Amino acid sequence: NHIIVCGLGRVGSEVFNTLKHEKQPFVVIEKNPERAALYRHSGVPVVVGDASEDKVLEQAGIHRARTLITTLPDDAGNLFIVMTSKDLNPNIKVITRATRSEGIPRLKRAGADSVIAPSALGGRRMAMSAIKPASVAFVQTLFERHNVYYQLEEFTVSSNSWLANKALKESGLREKFGCQLLVINRGHETIGSPGPDEVILPGDELIVFGPSDKLSELEKA
Amino acid sequence: NHIIVCGLGRVGSEVFNTLKHEKQPFVVIEKNPERAALYRHSGVPVVVGDASEDKVLEQAGIHRARTLITTLPDDAGNLFIVMTSKDLNPNIKVITRATRSEGIPRLKRAGADSVIAPSALGGRRMAMSAIKPASVAFVQTLFERHNVYYQLEEFTVSSNSWLANKALKESGLREKFGCQLLVINRGHETIGSPGPDEVILPGDELIVFGPSDKLSELEKA
Ligand SMILES: [Ca+2]
Ligand SMILES: [Ca+2]
Repeated sequence: NHIIVCGLGRVGSEVFNTLKHEKQPFVVIEKNPERAALYRHSGVPVVVGDASEDKVLEQAGIHRARTLITTLPDDAGNLFIVMTSKDLNPNIKVITRATRSEGIPRLKRAGADSVIAPSALGGRRMAMSAIKPASVAFVQTLFERHNVYYQLEEFTVSSNSWLANKALKESGLREKFGCQLLVINRGHETIGSPGPDEVILPGDELIVFGPSDKLSELEKA
Repeated sequence: NHIIVCGLGRVGSEVFNTLKHEKQPFVVIEKNPERAALYRHSGVPVVVGDASEDKVLEQAGIHRARTLITTLPDDAGNLFIVMTSKDLNPNIKVITRATRSEGIPRLKRAGADSVIAPSALGGRRMAMSAIKPASVAFVQTLFERHNVYYQLEEFTVSSNSWLANKALKESGLREKFGCQLLVINRGHETIGSPGPDEVILPGDELIVFGPSDKLSELEKA
């Protein structure tokens, strides 16, 4: 039930740092032995080999993994890894890098669950920084590592949760927890900025913004 | 009072598309005449030349510009443009790309107001997609072009705004507008997820999430 990361280049090393900071269980695959050696004492298992080979993916535990993240700098390589990993483990979630935006639809057709093009993301972020600087700064802090005060959290309401079948205004989410319910994902429906009369149902996925300590309380509740 | 974009490569072209879609006034500078020619009929002024030359920046109106976005694939080139544009117009806001994360502090020292490293951003996004997929999807839609329903908006409360000096619970932001106040930026203070008794002051910068049509109503109010 771990994550596999393919490639430790510029993008991959940032994936590495984030997963390590978030204390996620993961394994990395890196072809270049010199680069792999830099991570030898990181406490994270490193498989030295080519992630497009079945036996290398198997060595990284592809059959037991829940997610694979492939960060190679070429779209052909990533496409091959997307297809191979879905072949070896049809239940795995695959997140892939795209170097060119033209590659995005092809990677999706190959079975990728999520495709991220760093250049496009960066360009969009630069433009939005010029137009809505405060919103960009806010979103940045939400996903930044050092923001200990406020956070975005997501969790699913179980049928025995105290939140189940309560209207938002009776939930105390805002009053007791200082939290704001931004989105309810209910099946294929998305309810953005739900009103006070909205009733929270078992199975709802909630996206909540609020103080980090209150959020962990909430998630335990 | 326009924006200048330097470079129309992979990152720059995405800046171009976003600014165009958001109907911002802007000018681009591109050294490569063939690439520049592709934008000839875009309706956006293109200066063909090297953005590190004073006279090219002047041709793009650096003295009247409010923001410059430099997207070159090399950090030395971007650093030079950051320094030159601040020399020519000390009031300009400068947003720069960093190719290597090591370059970030240097670009900041050179005077950049905002430094964005697409690889680091992409890597962090890929890792967060594995950990908090719903939150990532939510944040993506906030800044995506086609999300017409919900949006993040920011605006400053003027002293004659009907919001000025009202407690959040009396503002009707949630009840009448279906909006959620996420953050108040007050001078150097940031108030995240403000409670119902928080009083909105003139000069406060508000970051609000809600239905797009209600937000434009709010901003006019
Ligand atoms: Ca969670
Ligand atoms: Ca605005």
